[in-house]
Amino acid sequence: MDIQDRKSIRVDASGMLYNTANPQSFLNEEIHAMRPGLQNASANLLLKRSQGELDFSALLIEMKDQAPLIQAFADDAAEHFDSFVLLGIGGSALGPQAVHQALRPYYYNELTQEKRNQRPRFYVVDNIDPVRFSELLSGLDLNKTLFNVVSKSGNTSETMAQFLIVRERLKAECGDQYHQHIVVTTDREKGNLAALAESEGYRRFEIPQGIGGRFSELTPVGLLPAAVCGIDILELMDGAIAMDERVREETELFENPAQLRAALAYLSLKQGKTMSVFMPYADGLKLMADWYAQLWAESLGKRYNRQGEKVWQGQTPIKALGVTDQHSQVQLYVEGPNDKVFTFVTVEQFKEDILIPKAPEVAQNLQFLGGHRMSELLHSELIATKYALTLAGRLHQTIVLPELTPFTVGQLLLLLQWETAYMGELLDVNAFDQPGVEEGKIGTYALMGKPGFAKRKVEIEAWIEATQRKQSNVQEDCGFREPAYDKIECEADTPRS
Amino acid sequence: MDIQDRKSIRVDASGMLYNTANPQSFLNEEIHAMRPGLQNASANLLLKRSQGELDFSALLIEMKDQAPLIQAFADDAAEHFDSFVLLGIGGSALGPQAVHQALRPYYYNELTQEKRNQRPRFYVVDNIDPVRFSELLSGLDLNKTLFNVVSKSGNTSETMAQFLIVRERLKAECGDQYHQHIVVTTDREKGNLAALAESEGYRRFEIPQGIGGRFSELTPVGLLPAAVCGIDILELMDGAIAMDERVREETELFENPAQLRAALAYLSLKQGKTMSVFMPYADGLKLMADWYAQLWAESLGKRYNRQGEKVWQGQTPIKALGVTDQHSQVQLYVEGPNDKVFTFVTVEQFKEDILIPKAPEVAQNLQFLGGHRMSELLHSELIATKYALTLAGRLHQTIVLPELTPFTVGQLLLLLQWETAYMGELLDVNAFDQPGVEEGKIGTYALMGKPGFAKRKVEIEAWIEATQRKQSNVQEDCGFREPAYDKIECEADTPRS
Repeated sequence: MDIQDRKSIRVDASGMLYNTANPQSFLNEEIHAMRPGLQNASANLLLKRSQGELDFSALLIEMKDQAPLIQAFADDAAEHFDSFVLLGIGGSALGPQAVHQALRPYYYNELTQEKRNQRPRFYVVDNIDPVRFSELLSGLDLNKTLFNVVSKSGNTSETMAQFLIVRERLKAECGDQYHQHIVVTTDREKGNLAALAESEGYRRFEIPQGIGGRFSELTPVGLLPAAVCGIDILELMDGAIAMDERVREETELFENPAQLRAALAYLSLKQGKTMSVFMPYADGLKLMADWYAQLWAESLGKRYNRQGEKVWQGQTPIKALGVTDQHSQVQLYVEGPNDKVFTFVTVEQFKEDILIPKAPEVAQNLQFLGGHRMSELLHSELIATKYALTLAGRLHQTIVLPELTPFTVGQLLLLLQWETAYMGELLDVNAFDQPGVEEGKIGTYALMGKPGFAKRKVEIEAWIEATQRKQSNVQEDCGFREPAYDKIECEADTPRS
Repeated sequence: MDIQDRKSIRVDASGMLYNTANPQSFLNEEIHAMRPGLQNASANLLLKRSQGELDFSALLIEMKDQAPLIQAFADDAAEHFDSFVLLGIGGSALGPQAVHQALRPYYYNELTQEKRNQRPRFYVVDNIDPVRFSELLSGLDLNKTLFNVVSKSGNTSETMAQFLIVRERLKAECGDQYHQHIVVTTDREKGNLAALAESEGYRRFEIPQGIGGRFSELTPVGLLPAAVCGIDILELMDGAIAMDERVREETELFENPAQLRAALAYLSLKQGKTMSVFMPYADGLKLMADWYAQLWAESLGKRYNRQGEKVWQGQTPIKALGVTDQHSQVQLYVEGPNDKVFTFVTVEQFKEDILIPKAPEVAQNLQFLGGHRMSELLHSELIATKYALTLAGRLHQTIVLPELTPFTVGQLLLLLQWETAYMGELLDVNAFDQPGVEEGKIGTYALMGKPGFAKRKVEIEAWIEATQRKQSNVQEDCGFREPAYDKIECEADTPRS
């Protein structure tokens, strides 16, 4: 692929490359010293790919082949329903929201049906706040609403609780036809949702076995809601496939943006950059920062490496938005500790622009604004921010999107997924599991009285009691003398940092 | 004030207090050793307050006295306008959004006018993305829209660019009456907006001189939009005043939640907790995390202390949302580096709740959900998450809101503002300025051709050119040999961390 292609996204890493003014910037040799590690990473990942263990990449063509089927269902749904409500959390929700925001109008749900091209309103319920859920349900005409229940395991407590509530309301409102208002996206065979789809007759789309939540946007998880809202999912897949081809093989480091970004991320982390700020300069990409934050945090934040050694690994993703957060976070970014590495994302050509008119005479020091386009102000602010960070010795790079289209968004998704996979290899952690969330799930089961978790319930209740005792002691005499819950077995062996 | 008052918010710090299982938790003695510092902080701040330098606290009564005037204007606006659009950025936008989300329905703008109690739709444009702004403007009936232009200095480039665009469109659409569609919130005397209000006849509200953007929510900046949307601003002020009285004097540490939180934040930072996660468990408080992130980042992220020594101070705020981010960030929080301290925010009594129905027979392992309320699931997940973090040796505390009302939100705002002011004293930095954003502003002026910034323009253009050269070198031979822009004077003297 021609890297100069007008529609190809590219990475400008110059803000991290060596300059004498900044002792923290990276020497050419340092960067190229990453090559053996990346060759190794590439070989490992391609082997996994050939063995069916890297399906976010390996199944792209298969997913594209399914697109027409998804599109047909989506077009039919758009004809029959006014609202499309996705029930899901984590990877089931972040990708669909990010892609929707990038490729549909910002105020989509407030547009008339005509301006939405006869497509349904789109809601993603990714939490179990009872107030918000009540408000949403009471505002919907259930007879004109399609619910998409998304959970690979069919076990996600939050999503299944939403589903049970919705199922009951649909039965009351729509009678025998209630099952027509539910479409599930789940594993092919396993789990409650597959069983329920079978027994209650819901239309079902399948999430391939080998694709975890945070890598699932380009499966029916993301393709169905995108298609329902009128996004060109074939173009999205084409962008993804183009990037996959571009980055999956080991090449010259500077020609492979995923490997380059992984190498620079690794070097930054080793240098003490414990945080990675992802800061798009476009409102349409705000939620892409949320999607990326899950990908980076869950994939790399790991207690053990692949040899089973405790490493407490990870780099913390920070979501930001330009220019907005210049007025909120940039003070810290410029003057705070030099513990962050920055990724800006910029859109070269916005699909609309506005000329700023001349200011009235009385406002003399606003005259400089008149005659510029709004995008010029935005782009100038990005340059000025990068310059200010450079002067303060901060490292930054920029992902450049020629324009914001399904083709560039598809590329961006795969770029960031591959970069994460490479980084997992460099850090020697399993980038595809999430063992650290089990404890919380088990605790919830215990507290909600799920059979088989009684012992944990006793344990947690003892802890709560000890905690309350501690608090009341504190209120009595501003302190407590006895360690209150030292009997809990725990792995609190993190070293003082 | 009775700390047990059902409507008082409280801080549960037990997750940070000493237990033998966690060597990082704080001994009673460690916490109490903070008292002299806090006594000093309190004395300094009260002195400032008496000298008119702590107006976010000192002017609360005055602001409450202005509330009826603001309310009258708001009620009148609600009668005449369908949409209320706030143009502002940073502190001018974050507070109004956070309070609106906390106290109005989640899908407010999509409700019918009747369900909005005849109040206008509410938009906050806090960025200069040309696509979003075009889409918004083309969707509004300008004859039924009131624009609130908010900028203390009247110099904010982003807000003033939006204003110039809106002013022209209003003139075209509404003719002579266009000035009736603009209300400005700005400094009493200084700046373009004050001058424009004078010469063009806009209604104007004043931001007191001594209150900076991130501390301005309880001035007309936040009170006007809140009142327009039907929020009880007197109750909001009453909550703020109650908290102000509770925390502004030095008291027993555990009876003063602002001082307690500052003390624990300070101890955590000194222990290497470079990040502070703010994670409400309520959709209504999601944007409160954004508001707090500005407050914490801009106030404390400082290159110099008050003696003029370089300190590169600051603790990075991380915005999160429970339970949603359990499926995105908690893997990292539990298994990643132990470099974060956590604040949860919980609402005890939601104003609506939903019973989860019994699951169908076929889904046996969902049976445990049936019969519980949604809020029980939410609260159980919070406890389970805190327990999991405790087992992993992480420090956490919880801010408890008995319910989500203007009175508790007002308290929360003041709690966090005071906590920030105390933390500024403990760190010996000026918590009320933001010198680090100047560089970016100057760069933007230079690139946009504002008179007086030509030298900086030359400087930045040289840097851009050097950057491009570096990139093209990289593309030619995957490296560059000469430092490309070593002539730029810069302060890149941050030590390698």
